[in-house]
Amino acid sequence: MSHARIARVGFVLALMSGSAIAGGKIAPAPNGIELPADYKDWKVISVAHRTDNNTMRAIVGNEAAVTAARQGHTNPWPNGAVLGKIVWKAVIDKHWDKATVPGEFVHVEFMVKDAAKFAATGGWGYARWKGAELKPYGNDANVAQECVACHTPVKSQDYVFTRPAPLP
Amino acid sequence: MSHARIARVGFVLALMSGSAIAGGKIAPAPNGIELPADYKDWKVISVAHRTDNNTMRAIVGNEAAVTAARQGHTNPWPNGAVLGKIVWKAVIDKHWDKATVPGEFVHVEFMVKDAAKFAATGGWGYARWKGAELKPYGNDANVAQECVACHTPVKSQDYVFTRPAPLP
Repeated sequence: MSHARIARVGFVLALMSGSAIAGGKIAPAPNGIELPADYKDWKVISVAHRTDNNTMRAIVGNEAAVTAARQGHTNPWPNGAVLGKIVWKAVIDKHWDKATVPGEFVHVEFMVKDAAKFAATGGWGYARWKGAELKPYGNDANVAQECVACHTPVKSQDYVFTRPAPLP
Repeated sequence: MSHARIARVGFVLALMSGSAIAGGKIAPAPNGIELPADYKDWKVISVAHRTDNNTMRAIVGNEAAVTAARQGHTNPWPNGAVLGKIVWKAVIDKHWDKATVPGEFVHVEFMVKDAAKFAATGGWGYARWKGAELKPYGNDANVAQECVACHTPVKSQDYVFTRPAPLP
């Protein structure tokens, strides 16, 4: 194949993939946690709007987390539960200026419950991937210390800020 | 069975069901649209915070809607797409006063795309169920006229306010 042809095939494959995940292997976080490949398909646990850093969030969970959320088993959350927070810049809706909605994707971050494996960080592993290219956040295996510091005020609810939103 | 025993069994069944949907048949909307039984399991398309009526929203979709959203086929949305908006009162997070999060459940509402069946209302059927008991909203089959009036300013984007949030 010519170089032009190879470039064209690569371009078409990139278009077909439609996402950074399908397009190639995403690097794990510096502490070894892997990006859950199907996080976009997880069910909703809650939503949030933070005005301190001007972001909108969807809080989703894997099956273990969603089952625990719906049954009210969230203090502690069970081992195997993974919570995902999808974060976007907050922008004003173009057609309804009293609505704040997602703009640019900022990052996706996870809390992975394993009381034994992550005993040093309150029973949770933490990881974050930034930007459209899903670049792992942090420089070394101690990346979670920063997360734990912020989550310690909610130690009484198993280090999780999110309360599952009521769903009848 | 004694009345007390019957009441007790009913109470246990209600606890087991864990939701208004599992607990019994939810009445259809006055225009005949049925509540999608599995809406809680749908994938996230976007989120929103409305300050005019002080609510937080998760916007979810059935498989046809999510596929269309991810492929960018949203103008028009395809027949068969159903968009769901889960709406809660907006409250300040107890542990982070710069975060607005879901409080009480308000209602869940849907747009059902069928260009032929719903030609009179722009190709979309509209329905809403209110409160924890999921009471159908509206008094007669013309309930959607109120919805169409509010959605007409976004006729240029197939009557849908929501733009799918970017997911890498």
